[in-house]
Amino acid sequence: MNGSVEISQVREALRGVKDPGLGRDIISLGMVDDIEVEEGVVRFTLALTTLACPLKDEILKNAKEAVLALEGARQVEVNLREMKSEEKKRIWPSDDREELRKEVARLNRVERTLAVMSGKGGVGKSSVAAMLAVELRRAGKRVGVLDADITGPSIPKMFGLHEPPPVGPLGMLPAVTESGIRVISINLLLPNEDEAVIWRGPLISGAIQQFWGEVVWGELDALVVDLPPGTSDAALTVMQSIPLNGVLLVTSPQDLAGMVVRKAARMAAQLKVPLVGLVENMSYLTCPQCGERIEVFGPSRAMETADRLGLSLLAQLPLDPDLARRCDAGQVEEYENEVFQSLAARVMERASAVKSTPIFAKG
Amino acid sequence: MNGSVEISQVREALRGVKDPGLGRDIISLGMVDDIEVEEGVVRFTLALTTLACPLKDEILKNAKEAVLALEGARQVEVNLREMKSEEKKRIWPSDDREELRKEVARLNRVERTLAVMSGKGGVGKSSVAAMLAVELRRAGKRVGVLDADITGPSIPKMFGLHEPPPVGPLGMLPAVTESGIRVISINLLLPNEDEAVIWRGPLISGAIQQFWGEVVWGELDALVVDLPPGTSDAALTVMQSIPLNGVLLVTSPQDLAGMVVRKAARMAAQLKVPLVGLVENMSYLTCPQCGERIEVFGPSRAMETADRLGLSLLAQLPLDPDLARRCDAGQVEEYENEVFQSLAARVMERASAVKSTPIFAKG
Repeated sequence: MNGSVEISQVREALRGVKDPGLGRDIISLGMVDDIEVEEGVVRFTLALTTLACPLKDEILKNAKEAVLALEGARQVEVNLREMKSEEKKRIWPSDDREELRKEVARLNRVERTLAVMSGKGGVGKSSVAAMLAVELRRAGKRVGVLDADITGPSIPKMFGLHEPPPVGPLGMLPAVTESGIRVISINLLLPNEDEAVIWRGPLISGAIQQFWGEVVWGELDALVVDLPPGTSDAALTVMQSIPLNGVLLVTSPQDLAGMVVRKAARMAAQLKVPLVGLVENMSYLTCPQCGERIEVFGPSRAMETADRLGLSLLAQLPLDPDLARRCDAGQVEEYENEVFQSLAARVMERASAVKSTPIFAKG
Repeated sequence: MNGSVEISQVREALRGVKDPGLGRDIISLGMVDDIEVEEGVVRFTLALTTLACPLKDEILKNAKEAVLALEGARQVEVNLREMKSEEKKRIWPSDDREELRKEVARLNRVERTLAVMSGKGGVGKSSVAAMLAVELRRAGKRVGVLDADITGPSIPKMFGLHEPPPVGPLGMLPAVTESGIRVISINLLLPNEDEAVIWRGPLISGAIQQFWGEVVWGELDALVVDLPPGTSDAALTVMQSIPLNGVLLVTSPQDLAGMVVRKAARMAAQLKVPLVGLVENMSYLTCPQCGERIEVFGPSRAMETADRLGLSLLAQLPLDPDLARRCDAGQVEEYENEVFQSLAARVMERASAVKSTPIFAKG
């Protein structure tokens, strides 16, 4: 006896549920079988490309909701399993890398790409990049972080990510943070996070190009790219291979940092990548004991630097031991400081003002 | 009338005076002519390869002293001029780059080479490298600094060096700081210090190899090499092309910095370069108002990191706004802090313990 719900109705309802990583509905992907209906209880098996799929919960939730929306369905039970390799082949018949890249390019839709750059290391560029992603996520955006710092990656640690990213049949999927930010970094792929990546430029460039073109990012409102210090291979590859809507420059009050950030600005100008503005980090520290405002790295030169570069100074951020602590503990997503919230809003506004059509990964 | 001093005596006396940059005496180099002696007053012309020669004062002083040591010489007057190009050719008949490199290698004698590395940027590696050089110089050593950070060079600014280094017929000579430290950096060669050096790896490596093998360093007790962040081309080239007596690792209390410094340590181990120890920089800040000890980047993890790496923790350095200020003002040589003095002594002691014969630049 079949209650009032037909199997065909269930099938139709599930045709409205997409695998966000693959960009197609779960019925046409062959992910659903064994549909049964018994007295309003709907049971089916959902075959995922990998059980480590970071989007598993989302697909499951959407599938359950779609079925429960049917009149007469009062309960849904889903049995999960992993696809067999011949099933996967049915979806992606080709092993050819170029074919896969094209397929990935078809799926990836990144509305805005934003690189965070400083030229000089240690000015807190990665924590600014991380907090930018956190604030955009808090504002409801679909956000990714591409860690382009191959030899000194710090993004995964800040988000408490230590597991290798899942690999689907199309390619690597980003790791997903607690709040749902998608992250790719070389450190997720190392057997040990202390491992050194002793690579010359072409390998560095190759890794960044793969992170952009061969990772199944899916649909993103914003991709934040964390650049390493310097104006050599990594920065060049990012500026030449990823269509950027803007570069956010991060500096510190030290005149030395200012000099190196001006080098970064010149590089962006030469490569015709738009700058969205300047952030001064580590501007001052408030003594937790007496409240004294201490200019650890000397008096601010941010306005002067911004003027020289013809940029807006978007924020002056204090040195906050709490942020350092949370980054070390993998809890950057728990850090709150309204200055980052307004920074994220201003950066997105400026990046959106840049003339650009939705960007697709290179095929 | 010739007084009691013979021209031949003057000539012999000057044969004892070397051009330290060229390693030969000024008579056989053809640098002296027009010797005259009149009533105890000795006059001659000294022809230098370049009037911008940083060793000019030293040669002049030695020449005067050598002549005044002659009995009967009561005054010396030296007329300086620059050698004509045919005179220079007489000294170095070849324009062939390989010949020049061999000649430079013959002259350069570097007793100890020490690289300062952190993996992560902004932990104050360059200021540690600079202060190491300053303290060694204060201890009477002949010291050079090779700035291997091609895309983010900060050494010249710290020492207040802004002029291009002099070029002699054999090749480039280092710039010389107020206290006599010899410095080579890409920033000395740029028309404008803000200029970006947008180079891929092979150019970066080529520049470092030239700084080592084609610069006329002369005789040095110690050469300090300031490495950029990362474990890519620059670090690889330094470790593979410069025979290092040791690498000093610099970290900060952040666990993130610790992770990246462990990568640097692994790289050194893989390339069989000896590590001399670990320095923790930015360990704490003393509030100038209330004296509170503020752990800006969280509690120290230096002992733990040193233990994990099997290294000695050679120093824990405070964050000192005064050091940042002096580095920005080009006055790092005026900074004093006894902690650097003992650090320099310990580092040299360890680097000297490493089995090594005097090192010559690669021909």
